[in-house]
Amino acid sequence: MKEKPLSSLCTPALVVDVDKVKRNALRMIERCGSRRCIVVSTLAEACFYADHGFDDILYAYSLPLDKVERCADLSERLDLFQILLDHPHALDELKKRPLRDGRLWHVWLKLDCGNGRAGVLHSQPEAISLAQAIVGTKGVELTGVYVHCGNSYNCRGVEQIQAVAQETTDLTLQFMEKLKASGITCKSSIGSTPSCSHPVKDMGKLSEVHPGNYGFYDVQQSVIGSCTLEEVAVKVLTRVIGHCPHRNQLLIDCGWCGLSLDGAGKLPTGYAVIEGHPDLKLLSMTQEHGRVEPISGPLDYSKFPLGSLLTLIPYHSCATAVMHPVYHVHSEGRLLGKWIPTRGW
Amino acid sequence: MKEKPLSSLCTPALVVDVDKVKRNALRMIERCGSRRCIVVSTLAEACFYADHGFDDILYAYSLPLDKVERCADLSERLDLFQILLDHPHALDELKKRPLRDGRLWHVWLKLDCGNGRAGVLHSQPEAISLAQAIVGTKGVELTGVYVHCGNSYNCRGVEQIQAVAQETTDLTLQFMEKLKASGITCKSSIGSTPSCSHPVKDMGKLSEVHPGNYGFYDVQQSVIGSCTLEEVAVKVLTRVIGHCPHRNQLLIDCGWCGLSLDGAGKLPTGYAVIEGHPDLKLLSMTQEHGRVEPISGPLDYSKFPLGSLLTLIPYHSCATAVMHPVYHVHSEGRLLGKWIPTRGW
Repeated sequence: MKEKPLSSLCTPALVVDVDKVKRNALRMIERCGSRRCIVVSTLAEACFYADHGFDDILYAYSLPLDKVERCADLSERLDLFQILLDHPHALDELKKRPLRDGRLWHVWLKLDCGNGRAGVLHSQPEAISLAQAIVGTKGVELTGVYVHCGNSYNCRGVEQIQAVAQETTDLTLQFMEKLKASGITCKSSIGSTPSCSHPVKDMGKLSEVHPGNYGFYDVQQSVIGSCTLEEVAVKVLTRVIGHCPHRNQLLIDCGWCGLSLDGAGKLPTGYAVIEGHPDLKLLSMTQEHGRVEPISGPLDYSKFPLGSLLTLIPYHSCATAVMHPVYHVHSEGRLLGKWIPTRGW
Repeated sequence: MKEKPLSSLCTPALVVDVDKVKRNALRMIERCGSRRCIVVSTLAEACFYADHGFDDILYAYSLPLDKVERCADLSERLDLFQILLDHPHALDELKKRPLRDGRLWHVWLKLDCGNGRAGVLHSQPEAISLAQAIVGTKGVELTGVYVHCGNSYNCRGVEQIQAVAQETTDLTLQFMEKLKASGITCKSSIGSTPSCSHPVKDMGKLSEVHPGNYGFYDVQQSVIGSCTLEEVAVKVLTRVIGHCPHRNQLLIDCGWCGLSLDGAGKLPTGYAVIEGHPDLKLLSMTQEHGRVEPISGPLDYSKFPLGSLLTLIPYHSCATAVMHPVYHVHSEGRLLGKWIPTRGW
C-alpha cells in the first residue's frame, strides 16, 4: 500500500517525525550511553511497559500512598520495579506491605538540589536520616539517590545549562560522600532534558542519568538551548477554517484541545511557532479555534485559502502530546502508522 | 454491590456529581425549554451521538474543508445533521458534494455579533449575500442563523450578562429582519453558558438557544455569575504527596495533566478553588505535580498528612474534563460508574 501524505490527515493532528526521533535518540546515546530500562511518570505508563516486555522500570514519582498496592504488584511481577521516596511516612507504608517471596522494595531517595519541587532538601539533616531509615528497613533496599534538575528550564544557552548541571552534579556527589561517611553506598543519578542534552564531564561520575524529553524536543527546549528548532520531532497540523479581514486575523482548527496553553506569553509568535511563517502569531485559542494574525502589517489572505495546512511547532511537546488520543507517525511526510499513547494514572 | 466512596479512587480523578448535573439540566429546561437534538463541537462527538441513537445533531463549527465527506456521510445517515458555514468557499465545497437521494445539506449561517471568533460579521453586506447564496444553491437549505455570544465571558454579574444577551438578541433579530426584507426566512439562535443561564425575555423570540456548559459549570462560570460555586458538578480529586516545609508548601498529585492551565492568573486561589480551604492557593503546576501554599501565614502540615484528599474545583471544566480519560460518576459521594468521554476530532 502506498503510504499516504500528511495532507491526507484530518486536523488538528499530532504528527511525529520518526527519523528525527531516531536521530535524537542516537545522539543521546552517544552523549550519555544507554540502558535497557525505562523511566515513567505514571503507573499507567509503568503498566503499559510492563505489559510489553520491560522488566526494569523506574516510577520516578514520590510514592503516592493510594498506589502502594499497585506498586507492590509491579514489584512482585517484574525483575526490577523501582520507586521514589522522600518522606518517612511513605517508608512506613512500605513496611506495612512486605513483598512476597522475599523480594525487596527498590527505593530511590528523591533529593531536591535546588529544583524546588519534590524531594527532601539536600542540605537538610532529614535527607541523610531518611536514607539511613531506608537502609535500616527490612524488605527495603536503598537503590540510589535521584535528583531532577528541572531548574535548568530557567536557563538560556549551553553555558547556563551546564552551570546548573555542574551544580546539581556537585551537590549530588557531595551528598553521596555524606552517605558514604555514614556507611551507605548506592547509585546516584540526575536528570532533565537540558542537562542531559549538554552534559558536563562530572556527570560521568554518576551511576546513571535520566534525559527527559530528548526524543521529541520542542520550542521550549530550543529556547533553553537543549536543541535546535529543526530537531523538534513532533508538530501539530492544523487547517485554516476562517478568514476575519475585519480583524486582520484568520482562524485555524486548533484550539487548546489540540495545543497546550502553556506557551502563554513566552514567545513573540504566541502559543507556538508556525513553521515557515515567522511573521505569523498564534494570538489566542479557545476550545477548538485558534486566532492567527501577522506580527505586523496586513494579512495576505490569498496565501491562506480555507482548508490550507499550517504546521504548529509546540512550545511544550509533553503538554501538547497529552492532548492527542493518536500520534500520527511519518517518515519524510509519508504516514507510517499510528501510536496510541497511554493516558491516565 | 455496595457502592464505593470517592476516597477509594486513585488520584488525580475527575468526579461528576450526577445529582448536580440533573439539577442543573432541569433548571436549564425550566428556563429555556428543551428539544431532543444535541449540539457538538467535534465530528468525533457527532459520530458518538449518531452511533447511540441521536438523529438530530448540530455540528456547531464552521465547516472544515477536510471534513466535508464525513459530514456528507452523517447527512445521508441521520434524519437531521446540521452544519455551520461562514464563507462562500465552504458553500462551493457543498455544491461539489451533492447528497444522495435528494437529501439537503442543512446549513446554519454562522454570524458574529461581537464575539470576535468565527462567523461573518453581522454588519457586513457579505452576511446577507452569503445567506442569499446559500438559499440560491441547489441541494442546500438555509436552516437558520447561528450566533455564539462568547463575549459574555467577559461579564461579571447578571446585569452585564443580560446586557450582552440583549445586544446579541437585538442584533440577531435585526439581521433576521434584513433577511426577511430580502425574502428569506429561517430559524434564529444564540447561545453561550452565561446568556442562557440568565436569559432575557427577548430571547423567547428566537427559534432556539444553545446553552453551553450548564451541566457541569465551573469556577469561571461562578465568577461570571452564571451559577453559584455550589452548582459546579465536576471536580478533581487529588492527594497530598509531599511536604516542603522549607518552602511553606505541600505537593499534590495533580499537575497540568489533570487540571487545565487556563485558570492562570485569574483567581486569588491560583489555578483552582480548593474546596473547604479558601486559605490555600494552587500556586503552580508541572506535568504531574501541583504546588499548594497558604495565601498567608505558615502551613499547618498536621492538617494535610501524606495521602490526604483535597478537592479541586476547576476554573474551566471543559478544559479540565478533556484531560481525563475517565469521568467517575457519583451520587452523594458514592460511586455509580464511569463515563468514557469521546476525544479527538
